[in-house]
Amino acid sequence: MITKEKYEIARKKALEYFEKAHIVLTEEEKKNIEIADFGLNQLEKIGLQIVTYVNTDRYCAKEMVLFPNQTCPEHKHPDHDGQKGKEETFRCRYGRVYLFVEGKKNERHVEPPSKEYFTAFHEIVLEPGEQYTIPPNTLHWFKAGKEGAVVSEFSSHSDDASDLFTDPRIKRIPEIEGKEEI
Amino acid sequence: MITKEKYEIARKKALEYFEKAHIVLTEEEKKNIEIADFGLNQLEKIGLQIVTYVNTDRYCAKEMVLFPNQTCPEHKHPDHDGQKGKEETFRCRYGRVYLFVEGKKNERHVEPPSKEYFTAFHEIVLEPGEQYTIPPNTLHWFKAGKEGAVVSEFSSHSDDASDLFTDPRIKRIPEIEGKEEI
Repeated sequence: MITKEKYEIARKKALEYFEKAHIVLTEEEKKNIEIADFGLNQLEKIGLQIVTYVNTDRYCAKEMVLFPNQTCPEHKHPDHDGQKGKEETFRCRYGRVYLFVEGKKNERHVEPPSKEYFTAFHEIVLEPGEQYTIPPNTLHWFKAGKEGAVVSEFSSHSDDASDLFTDPRIKRIPEIEGKEEI
Repeated sequence: MITKEKYEIARKKALEYFEKAHIVLTEEEKKNIEIADFGLNQLEKIGLQIVTYVNTDRYCAKEMVLFPNQTCPEHKHPDHDGQKGKEETFRCRYGRVYLFVEGKKNERHVEPPSKEYFTAFHEIVLEPGEQYTIPPNTLHWFKAGKEGAVVSEFSSHSDDASDLFTDPRIKRIPEIEGKEEI
């Protein structure tokens, strides 16, 4: 549960990063930025700020903000309801993103926010203009550098409710005080 | 057939618009911008400049430049090879785009580049941050305003070779002097 006050602070901060990345949003999009604290109540450390442009049954496009050193926790997109899991491409627009996927462990430049619940340690560093495609059913997590980051996500249909997180405490769908769901 | 010299002029000009829109590209992407003159040899009037970020069998993302008053000619994405036609979302990033789709004719702010081969006259004006989703099998064309335009395209898998153009003279896949295909 995130308080209305904390939601508003995070929303305004996210807007600053969209401005730094020169991403133009409509007033409606600015008002409804999704603030995901994953139910952990430590947003600055573990969280993600999202604008979903479009999500049809065939494809999805989002713009995401990571605050400085903020981490999106480890998860994967499994097959579900007879559908293949989500395949997604991250393209860095601003700042730097350290993306970790399953695979050969290599030298890493950042640490996860906790020792528990992080198991994928193949690091891919994305600078503005660089991108990486994550296959379905692949554990991944990502963390911004010191400047924060703005990342475009292009993908197949997105169904956040089916995401599988390594940390069993996580609730993916944000709960805001006084709102049923955003 | 576009000459190497014309290709290079158009490529450099396209880069200027990507810069105006603050879109960061890799050196590789900058070198390989697709210049589509549709085989009509009047690029400034009818053409499109494209960077394809990703095109998997499930989704596709492109960044497109339209020069001032340049038009992408009327076409649709039909079902083919047992697959549903391409569904696509245009999101304006810079300038202004006049998008025309099949449907009720309304007052329009621009004219097509010729009277022939343009039949869809339901106009949607897109300013930066605004977007529109075009269903499969729907005739559409679009034209930039006086400032030119940069437009993101999010879509299902893209197979340009299956596009159906109203103008039968059109060749969608660009041919550059001395290159088999780009």
